[in-house]
Amino acid sequence: MTDTGTEAEQQTYDVVVVGAGPVGENAADRTRSAGLSTVIVESELVGGECSYWACMPSKALLRPVLAQADARRLPGLAQQVTWPLEAGPVLARRDSFTSHWKDGGQVEWLDSVDVPLVRGHGRLDGPKTVAVTTPEGTVERLTARHAVVLATGSRAKLPPLPGIDEAKPWTSREATSAQQVPGRLAIVGGGVVAVEMATAWRGLGAHVTLLVRGEGLLDRLEPFAGELLAKQLAEHGVDIRPGTSVAEVSRPGGTGTVSLTLGDGSTLEADEVLFATGRAPRSEDLGLETVDLEPGAWLESDDSCRVPGTDWLYSVGDLNHRALLTHQGKYQARVAGTAIAARAKGETVDTAPWSPAQTTADHAAVPQVVFTDPEIAAVGLTLAEAEAAGHRVRAVDQEIGSVAGAALYADGYTGRARLIVDEDHGFLRGATFVGPGVSELLHSATIAIAGEVPLARLWHAVPSYPTISEVWLRLLEAYRDGS
Amino acid sequence: MTDTGTEAEQQTYDVVVVGAGPVGENAADRTRSAGLSTVIVESELVGGECSYWACMPSKALLRPVLAQADARRLPGLAQQVTWPLEAGPVLARRDSFTSHWKDGGQVEWLDSVDVPLVRGHGRLDGPKTVAVTTPEGTVERLTARHAVVLATGSRAKLPPLPGIDEAKPWTSREATSAQQVPGRLAIVGGGVVAVEMATAWRGLGAHVTLLVRGEGLLDRLEPFAGELLAKQLAEHGVDIRPGTSVAEVSRPGGTGTVSLTLGDGSTLEADEVLFATGRAPRSEDLGLETVDLEPGAWLESDDSCRVPGTDWLYSVGDLNHRALLTHQGKYQARVAGTAIAARAKGETVDTAPWSPAQTTADHAAVPQVVFTDPEIAAVGLTLAEAEAAGHRVRAVDQEIGSVAGAALYADGYTGRARLIVDEDHGFLRGATFVGPGVSELLHSATIAIAGEVPLARLWHAVPSYPTISEVWLRLLEAYRDGS
Repeated sequence: MTDTGTEAEQQTYDVVVVGAGPVGENAADRTRSAGLSTVIVESELVGGECSYWACMPSKALLRPVLAQADARRLPGLAQQVTWPLEAGPVLARRDSFTSHWKDGGQVEWLDSVDVPLVRGHGRLDGPKTVAVTTPEGTVERLTARHAVVLATGSRAKLPPLPGIDEAKPWTSREATSAQQVPGRLAIVGGGVVAVEMATAWRGLGAHVTLLVRGEGLLDRLEPFAGELLAKQLAEHGVDIRPGTSVAEVSRPGGTGTVSLTLGDGSTLEADEVLFATGRAPRSEDLGLETVDLEPGAWLESDDSCRVPGTDWLYSVGDLNHRALLTHQGKYQARVAGTAIAARAKGETVDTAPWSPAQTTADHAAVPQVVFTDPEIAAVGLTLAEAEAAGHRVRAVDQEIGSVAGAALYADGYTGRARLIVDEDHGFLRGATFVGPGVSELLHSATIAIAGEVPLARLWHAVPSYPTISEVWLRLLEAYRDGS
Repeated sequence: MTDTGTEAEQQTYDVVVVGAGPVGENAADRTRSAGLSTVIVESELVGGECSYWACMPSKALLRPVLAQADARRLPGLAQQVTWPLEAGPVLARRDSFTSHWKDGGQVEWLDSVDVPLVRGHGRLDGPKTVAVTTPEGTVERLTARHAVVLATGSRAKLPPLPGIDEAKPWTSREATSAQQVPGRLAIVGGGVVAVEMATAWRGLGAHVTLLVRGEGLLDRLEPFAGELLAKQLAEHGVDIRPGTSVAEVSRPGGTGTVSLTLGDGSTLEADEVLFATGRAPRSEDLGLETVDLEPGAWLESDDSCRVPGTDWLYSVGDLNHRALLTHQGKYQARVAGTAIAARAKGETVDTAPWSPAQTTADHAAVPQVVFTDPEIAAVGLTLAEAEAAGHRVRAVDQEIGSVAGAALYADGYTGRARLIVDEDHGFLRGATFVGPGVSELLHSATIAIAGEVPLARLWHAVPSYPTISEVWLRLLEAYRDGS
């Protein structure tokens, strides 16, 4: 029992997970499956950002738009397709994929795996203890015998511009859940959220202006990715303005037209403005100060996802800032669950790379698909990253459009692939594919990189003809021929 | 000089390649690149069956049809799409992909890699000698210092039915090159050509009846592949008649309606009939008897593609009957080229599995994509094949529709995946994916199998969310959980 709140309860579990997004859910599933009693805490919807305001709704918006873009490149089908799509059915389908922002199905799943849910805001209250303020205002204290797993994720970060609060800007949440197509949409940013939302809403008929602070899009990927994407977005009618900053935002009362004052003093008017300007950790009100950690900062973890200096605290998913991607967070959750279960049994965790309780792929093989037209799929290190890491590498490039399977896939196919070959080890460090229909091609590279498959063996992995995957053969030939 | 023909010429090269399809072209390219003088012989179009009457035209017909099938499963886009496609633009695109059945581009490529072309019918005339009867009726004798490579491929095999010749049936050639959509198309067969052509011509509006001798489609693949395909073909309106044989064909004068007498005595009328009833080797007029080999039979080769009992004769592609697939023949051609070059230098070829001059993948990792709705992609061994080969294996199955990326890809997504896990070695022996949009997913499995990547490592190959590739994670979980 505690002295905080009214009618405080105290319960003890082997593992307490804070945050029931996909990452927290996976961590809980893994520890529970290992026989550890596990409780999970959630302050919003079970299923998290991904299910309601990120991956699922964004891809539900994007898939018909990308399929339409592909259809328009195929004689016979192109004659049937007119731009833009009717938004109603697309938005209704998106609503279905978010379960209309209700989490009943996810709660049922938690029940099915025997993980009790505590709704409320969880905060650390000293080692191995989480105090949950419930919606009713009571405080429930959860004590962990073995581990507390923090999986609270991240939130959109808004720049401190004059007028920004009153202007009620969109973040990724509003951009993925909007119920109407804005006539004019201004998007501030050049990262994944910015370009995916530009693609989706342009495909549904909005006039989109993309205000990019830097010179290019997607500047963490190989440069050609952003370049090919910018070209295609412009062809789709997106007004891209590189080198543009926003100085001020104005929408008195938060209704009507929003007016952006740009860095050069000019003005841009829009019906909505989306700030896709990065993410901040959801750690400012987690009680980190009660265990001598810094509130508001990313909470770093080691390769077992444990927070250094503790033997009980784990940080998984966006919160540890290793890779802000649902699938990578889920991977970390599986690894953390394995590590927690091993340590609970008194076992020592093998810290060799690629061991079951090590998130080695976080360093070597993080995959990402950007669902734009063209699709962008990358895994592992870029050339710049590999060189910065001191690897002796060579980049091998290939135009994908020259592959028969790509030419068949779409008329005028434009795309490019790059492999980063480690010259000392004879395997791949990275791969990037840009072009229509490449998203499912990525996992071949992910397996090659995570599997450290030698190039000599990759010659025996024959791509089926005529698929886009035949670009693998062209890339191996280019490497062999030194081109 | 020789005593055959008029004005016979004789020329000597390091390597003589007979057959300038993709397989022969690749063999010639490899030996020429290795510094060996190489000549190539072709009796029809340079580029071969694949370029003009198989892969290229069939996929050109199929791609818009499959894209339309996908589009009809996406609200927003579905409203714009009506069945069937207008055939004119699709056929015109197909004609473009076959270069209107002209081989000028391919001949230019041969020139560019410095491989002279001899047009005519090539026949062995004793060891290391090929006699080419040119279109002009002269005979040109080509002598090989090191190797003769036979890459003459295969042709459609027609059953010896009463009336079949007069009825002018379609084979794969006519089915891929037809200039009009038949009103009623009868297809005899249940293999790849049969189901792909049923898909293509049904998608362009034909009434298609599929007469299948056996009980299922695609009987060399995992049984669920043919089952899911049959269900979908039927939904698309294809009339599938399993257990049906054809006793007689009648089309007097070869024009008008064709009438098929079926095994049960009933009659089926159609505007065209396609016999997709297997392939025969193009070896009956190759002069094999001059080197004590059997004309008309498949010409078997070892893992370097050399014909046993010779030190100079190579058989690559369909002709060796290892895998009747363009990409696998090209792989054999690369390997054969490597072996020929090594032996020409007096080197011994390493016969260890997965060596550069061994076609190990022919046994372990042959990939194939069937471009139907659903797409079917398979590599390596089926469960039945793996068990017959004596491997201790377990099959792991997963419904693909339960994966978020698949549900997003198409409403009502139906598909299934299977991995064949070798329990003794801890790696994969086979994989099959059936469902819309899985064709580019296959290469991930091809790399895993050819790379013999341990399952423990595949856990670190994270599929990007939300792609269809996430089925990999579900399959690994199913294997772990013993389900």
